[in-house]
Amino acid sequence: MSKKLKIVTIGGGSSYTPELAEGLILRQDRLDIKEWWLVDIDAGKEKLEIVGEMARRQVKAAGLDWEVHLTTDRTLALKDADFVTTQFRVGQLDARIRDERIPSKYHSLGQETNGAGGIFKAFRTIPVILDIINDMKELCPDAWLINFTNPAGMVTEAAIKVGGWKKTIGLCNVPIGSTRMNNTAMGYDGQDVLFHKYAGLNHFHWHRVWDKDGSEVTNKLIETIYNPESDFLKDHEVKNIMLVGYNYEQLKSLGIIPCAYHRYYYMSEDMLEGTLADYEKGETRAEVVKRTEAELFELYKDPHLDYKPEQLALRGGAHYSDAACEVIASIVNDSRTVMVVSTQNNGTITDLPYDSIVEVSSVITAHGAEPFNWGSFPAGARGQLQLMKSMEELVIEAAVKGDYGKAIEAFTVNPLINSGSHMMDMLNEMLVANKDYLPQFKETIAKLEQEGVTYIPQ
Amino acid sequence: MSKKLKIVTIGGGSSYTPELAEGLILRQDRLDIKEWWLVDIDAGKEKLEIVGEMARRQVKAAGLDWEVHLTTDRTLALKDADFVTTQFRVGQLDARIRDERIPSKYHSLGQETNGAGGIFKAFRTIPVILDIINDMKELCPDAWLINFTNPAGMVTEAAIKVGGWKKTIGLCNVPIGSTRMNNTAMGYDGQDVLFHKYAGLNHFHWHRVWDKDGSEVTNKLIETIYNPESDFLKDHEVKNIMLVGYNYEQLKSLGIIPCAYHRYYYMSEDMLEGTLADYEKGETRAEVVKRTEAELFELYKDPHLDYKPEQLALRGGAHYSDAACEVIASIVNDSRTVMVVSTQNNGTITDLPYDSIVEVSSVITAHGAEPFNWGSFPAGARGQLQLMKSMEELVIEAAVKGDYGKAIEAFTVNPLINSGSHMMDMLNEMLVANKDYLPQFKETIAKLEQEGVTYIPQ
Amino acid sequence: MSKKLKIVTIGGGSSYTPELAEGLILRQDRLDIKEWWLVDIDAGKEKLEIVGEMARRQVKAAGLDWEVHLTTDRTLALKDADFVTTQFRVGQLDARIRDERIPSKYHSLGQETNGAGGIFKAFRTIPVILDIINDMKELCPDAWLINFTNPAGMVTEAAIKVGGWKKTIGLCNVPIGSTRMNNTAMGYDGQDVLFHKYAGLNHFHWHRVWDKDGSEVTNKLIETIYNPESDFLKDHEVKNIMLVGYNYEQLKSLGIIPCAYHRYYYMSEDMLEGTLADYEKGETRAEVVKRTEAELFELYKDPHLDYKPEQLALRGGAHYSDAACEVIASIVNDSRTVMVVSTQNNGTITDLPYDSIVEVSSVITAHGAEPFNWGSFPAGARGQLQLMKSMEELVIEAAVKGDYGKAIEAFTVNPLINSGSHMMDMLNEMLVANKDYLPQFKETIAKLEQEGVTYIPQ
Amino acid sequence: MSKKLKIVTIGGGSSYTPELAEGLILRQDRLDIKEWWLVDIDAGKEKLEIVGEMARRQVKAAGLDWEVHLTTDRTLALKDADFVTTQFRVGQLDARIRDERIPSKYHSLGQETNGAGGIFKAFRTIPVILDIINDMKELCPDAWLINFTNPAGMVTEAAIKVGGWKKTIGLCNVPIGSTRMNNTAMGYDGQDVLFHKYAGLNHFHWHRVWDKDGSEVTNKLIETIYNPESDFLKDHEVKNIMLVGYNYEQLKSLGIIPCAYHRYYYMSEDMLEGTLADYEKGETRAEVVKRTEAELFELYKDPHLDYKPEQLALRGGAHYSDAACEVIASIVNDSRTVMVVSTQNNGTITDLPYDSIVEVSSVITAHGAEPFNWGSFPAGARGQLQLMKSMEELVIEAAVKGDYGKAIEAFTVNPLINSGSHMMDMLNEMLVANKDYLPQFKETIAKLEQEGVTYIPQ
Repeated sequence: MSKKLKIVTIGGGSSYTPELAEGLILRQDRLDIKEWWLVDIDAGKEKLEIVGEMARRQVKAAGLDWEVHLTTDRTLALKDADFVTTQFRVGQLDARIRDERIPSKYHSLGQETNGAGGIFKAFRTIPVILDIINDMKELCPDAWLINFTNPAGMVTEAAIKVGGWKKTIGLCNVPIGSTRMNNTAMGYDGQDVLFHKYAGLNHFHWHRVWDKDGSEVTNKLIETIYNPESDFLKDHEVKNIMLVGYNYEQLKSLGIIPCAYHRYYYMSEDMLEGTLADYEKGETRAEVVKRTEAELFELYKDPHLDYKPEQLALRGGAHYSDAACEVIASIVNDSRTVMVVSTQNNGTITDLPYDSIVEVSSVITAHGAEPFNWGSFPAGARGQLQLMKSMEELVIEAAVKGDYGKAIEAFTVNPLINSGSHMMDMLNEMLVANKDYLPQFKETIAKLEQEGVTYIPQ
Repeated sequence: MSKKLKIVTIGGGSSYTPELAEGLILRQDRLDIKEWWLVDIDAGKEKLEIVGEMARRQVKAAGLDWEVHLTTDRTLALKDADFVTTQFRVGQLDARIRDERIPSKYHSLGQETNGAGGIFKAFRTIPVILDIINDMKELCPDAWLINFTNPAGMVTEAAIKVGGWKKTIGLCNVPIGSTRMNNTAMGYDGQDVLFHKYAGLNHFHWHRVWDKDGSEVTNKLIETIYNPESDFLKDHEVKNIMLVGYNYEQLKSLGIIPCAYHRYYYMSEDMLEGTLADYEKGETRAEVVKRTEAELFELYKDPHLDYKPEQLALRGGAHYSDAACEVIASIVNDSRTVMVVSTQNNGTITDLPYDSIVEVSSVITAHGAEPFNWGSFPAGARGQLQLMKSMEELVIEAAVKGDYGKAIEAFTVNPLINSGSHMMDMLNEMLVANKDYLPQFKETIAKLEQEGVTYIPQ
Repeated sequence: MSKKLKIVTIGGGSSYTPELAEGLILRQDRLDIKEWWLVDIDAGKEKLEIVGEMARRQVKAAGLDWEVHLTTDRTLALKDADFVTTQFRVGQLDARIRDERIPSKYHSLGQETNGAGGIFKAFRTIPVILDIINDMKELCPDAWLINFTNPAGMVTEAAIKVGGWKKTIGLCNVPIGSTRMNNTAMGYDGQDVLFHKYAGLNHFHWHRVWDKDGSEVTNKLIETIYNPESDFLKDHEVKNIMLVGYNYEQLKSLGIIPCAYHRYYYMSEDMLEGTLADYEKGETRAEVVKRTEAELFELYKDPHLDYKPEQLALRGGAHYSDAACEVIASIVNDSRTVMVVSTQNNGTITDLPYDSIVEVSSVITAHGAEPFNWGSFPAGARGQLQLMKSMEELVIEAAVKGDYGKAIEAFTVNPLINSGSHMMDMLNEMLVANKDYLPQFKETIAKLEQEGVTYIPQ
Repeated sequence: MSKKLKIVTIGGGSSYTPELAEGLILRQDRLDIKEWWLVDIDAGKEKLEIVGEMARRQVKAAGLDWEVHLTTDRTLALKDADFVTTQFRVGQLDARIRDERIPSKYHSLGQETNGAGGIFKAFRTIPVILDIINDMKELCPDAWLINFTNPAGMVTEAAIKVGGWKKTIGLCNVPIGSTRMNNTAMGYDGQDVLFHKYAGLNHFHWHRVWDKDGSEVTNKLIETIYNPESDFLKDHEVKNIMLVGYNYEQLKSLGIIPCAYHRYYYMSEDMLEGTLADYEKGETRAEVVKRTEAELFELYKDPHLDYKPEQLALRGGAHYSDAACEVIASIVNDSRTVMVVSTQNNGTITDLPYDSIVEVSSVITAHGAEPFNWGSFPAGARGQLQLMKSMEELVIEAAVKGDYGKAIEAFTVNPLINSGSHMMDMLNEMLVANKDYLPQFKETIAKLEQEGVTYIPQ
């Protein structure tokens, strides 16, 4: 830990930045930071300045001499960086609103990770991450890329497989939440006693759990948490997903614990009904988040606020930034912390292609993530997992090449989208609606517009 | 071809039997038959006699001395059999009507192979096929089992993997139809010139095609058949599936040709709409077939009719029996005919488990099916294929053990069923409605009934 | 079969050419040949003319109007070719003599395919086949490459994987011989009744056999042919391998039939002893072949000889050229003949890498080889097969890059070479001895010479 | 760590027991032992008593109240055991002497793990481990089996796959030695700083190493340790293997570090020469060990000796017992120590069968070993690894069934044995020589004796 670090955060104007600041400050003994650069685009400059000043106040309050730089010049920031974290959102929250509202119109789930919305988020994000990598190849060829831009799994797969940036680690906060919840459920509130093994894809993983006496407690946890007669879940589940219980007998039969996002796949009709109700009320997740963020930025403007405000927890996505800071500290110190990250499969999950990106329990060393072997899944998880990976591959190919055919294929196999002619209408409207952010689909969009496809905001 | 053959047909009272008779007669030079036994259950005795007399007339008209035996005593028939063909339907067409109408009530596709209906058909059929195999082990341990009872893929997998009957071959008529259609589309009407390679699962396979000059014509066929401006499909597609066009750009991008049943997966919303419309009119496929069959049996009663009537073609499933006869003749004569059959994977499709049953182009030899190697699928087909196989495994496990949890898992991952709480209602109602045919689920059904679940015929 | 064919034979001055001529003439009804080009290098010009005139006499005697061109200008010949067959030998038979005599000095098997000699033959040959492919890319981009230059498996793998020439088929005569022998052993002399399935690598494959009644006769064949009390083998085994019996109980236990070359692996000490005895007498296989060839060329000079002389059979390698002609005729006519060829694995043998080249029973269609699926091998064959494939990969990498380290690795893992310090001496002497034919190893050889390594002919 | 432990050591009369005692005592804070049972057979009773008294003195000197029981009644010992460690040697050192001397007579390597000697050690040991497991199923169904009887990999595979005892962990001291050596080579003498990842089979594994700054130092270690100009190896390599340097360029090209035992495979001729020289002098490893052990037992008899004597280090196999104690302590305390153990593959090494036993870096938890994923090997290691695994499978099958054919197959594919007719003589003599310890081969041995095969001690 001799070298002084330069950390760069792309999408630095995000409302999450104060959490990131807090996470870094919390690890000040393990992180000898010289410079922290917050980068954003011109459109985000105002937010960048608000949140950047906030971060400076936090650093100062901690009595640290870290330099906090704010810039819209990415190349300036990237020069000689040691770590690049990414938390940007192409098209900002308005794009997410479209991602969620257009599918609702077609009675389909938008869902910003794996639904139709997630596919479009990937279409907008992947070309940008590849641009960033191109800059990094020139400006900081040895830097680590810590991605927590969603859909984190696909963005990480694009970075590693298409961009060729091996030193990429993708992050998600979901496993942190369930690990805590499980410890609580077993009577270890606030401690990290249980041995967890997670495997799958981002927002599509399962886990098994063992107690310190060697007994597997996976089934016991299912009974404690998902028994329909228990109130446990209501009190402990993550905040940014609608609370729907699972079919208890299904989980008992499956024998491994799904993640919070599996509700979209295991209880899709119920989730769709809830989503459509929110849509009717103008309360899609994106709309709610947009209001929360506006309030957060008002708070951040307060020149006396020098700590992460409690309201940020409502934003959802708690622990995301904390996870990023822990990955950085583990790499710098070869700490060998066990974390759940998106990394190269290399046979960890034998049901998936060798060169895929998977989200798995790993030891974080100075040379990156070393995953625990998982092996294969039972049939009740295996096929859907393989389907999701195939969909991710189609989305990435479509995103990189602007390939309309692959986009249709991705929509067709996505289990949250009903295939058929209405699906084509939805896809086409979403393409036109995202016109400004999808240069790779320029010709297709022009053709669709010529054929009369228009985006009608609802 | 020295030994005189004994062929046994379980479900001999089926309306298909005259086609089977015709197929056997057509191959009289390659099949030296001594006895043909038609077996059915007591409830089907009347049909058995009608259709059995019809078969006798056909044999006689051909000037053959084959003995046609009719019996409801399966063990009598199986003794020393060389070939056992299975075409039975547990619960008869009324069960199929329930398979289709109950899901429709829940806005879900019944579909007698892979939808909710297909799952229940598997639940009813698999225990019976395992019973038959138990008899065969004792009575005709060297016989071939030629299965064309649907869902043919799952029934064949159960026979081989659970029943341990290696000498099982599963059959489907769909590839015969598409092979003919493709030859026609390339200008070889009535000929079999093109080289076809099929791979996948029953009712869920794709194919590639080459012309006699070595050029691959798969894309050309997609253009000829599935171009929305072409009328070709309308004139040539199989009769027992609603005619819905595919998304042309999807097929172009996929680069392999789906089977007729892929409509349920690629155009699921359109297919559902059509199915619900039929449901409203009381014209589900099962109801239509029931009427057609009643008419057929009226015809069969005619003591002067000694050839397959043209009306049978309307029944759907043309070529099924013909395929069975060709398999038998190829085995007997080591003919090495190329056919598409359900057989052990053994690595033929590398995306699927080694010990799975797959439906693939094979050479039929005296020792069984020798499949052409296929390898792996492109992403646009791979994931769904893997999902379907995992669903099949869940269905088989549920069917064999009467495992309610596995049944829920199967329903949950099935892409034609929307998961969630309504799904549970549908599953439960279907279990109760099938009470008479699911002894393995006896306890579950009793519990459901106690909880107030009832079947309300619509 | 409308287009008139242009066939090019690289290494046209080979003593095999009359057999090739005979094979083509035999298939005159299926091959509408316009031009047949025999190509050789300057050093082989005299032989080319002798054998070329011989071929012209054969064609004339058959009453055909095919043009037989002789040239040392490869590019002239390749222009617009339809088929390119390769049977060249870099360094001619003197190189093979070195390949066999140097290892003998180190008490090691030379063996022109998989032993140390075979490795050096690959080192000399692979760069040339890649050169030929480079020419073909420009001059005849749609031509088929039919390779029967040894080591045929590695040369084919280099052509397809390194050269990128997908339309390559590798050939071997060994399966033709064993198929005939097996038919004879089962009482079908001169017929092709049995169903054979071969799989493995060139000169390292096994097969299973079924009779026309469907019974597997693999064990029966082992008993008939390899029972130590039987004389069958002595009378029927291929001529160019020393006759050593197998350990009968091993084959019985293995349950699949090895190829003739497995003697080198299953009976390595005995084979080595015999080889060393030949070496002492100056009768290594290469030396014997050299004398036979000299006699053959004397015969070929006879201006009245217009048919393949019987003495050619003594040369060994019977059926090689015939196999090549059959592959060509099958491609031209989409004949779907079953042959054993080297082609892409694609999962045919699940124990080997997907992109490997394997030698397997295939149907030869107009678009190339369609292998029968094989699956996995029993342990007694699996591990050695996987070892051999890894060795082939190392050899190809060494051959392409001139990589000394990979050459050492290949020698180390080769089961016919004892690893250690003597092995290094042997490798080094062979490198120096092959100086003129290994431009890719130029620097390594220079360094070795500087260190005092010399080739001392024995 | 609430429960008081009962530990049972089968082969308790071994000269290693004092090291085991030392290892347990060293971990007294983590191991709350009530009873330690040392079990041996009648023939080993004298040794058991000597070494048992020694262990009691060690325990007493440490001021512990552990009960040390000595018995020849295995069932008495196993009752309610928590851990069973196995370090027995069927046929004692005289059997090992035969294992090494008979092969030498045939100019072949005996080698007590993977050579002909190792195969026979497996033949003698596997039936006994399966017997022990049968007792455990009844007497201590929840106990862990910690095996360090050689050949440890095959014995562990037999215990898990044939015996069905999932809670088995196999141990080897080799990785402990190389991990220490590598740390020393990088300047971390006495520390454990480097991140090691090992994978392969027992006595046939490789490793990669990373420094705490994240840089891979595998190549640097090869340069430091295996450069022929360096003396490092001479000073640090394990003591029980003859010191022969590797071909440096091979290791550089391979890019991963082999284990000490790879000398037998990479430098087989040199190792054979050394072994034969020892054989001539009556100084095979077994003979040397026998003398060392006799001296050790003289020391152990001293009623004042209550600590492990230094001479034990000369015995070879240092750290073996220590490793066993660390595994036990890690399981009891859920310590999650990183160790290299033999455990189920489950896809950890994708080149090997899923259900194989492999030796890999793992975290030792309360529920057993959780291996780090490895993935696939480069060609220079992959094929030999796969070959060795196939050989292990053949050996286990032969050992369990007494299958002579599988024994021949195992000998044939073993790369340390030259195949052929001499091999058959060697195998047959070894079978006869081991007559007293191979009940499963009783019939084969009787037949061989009838045919005149005799064991002639050399």
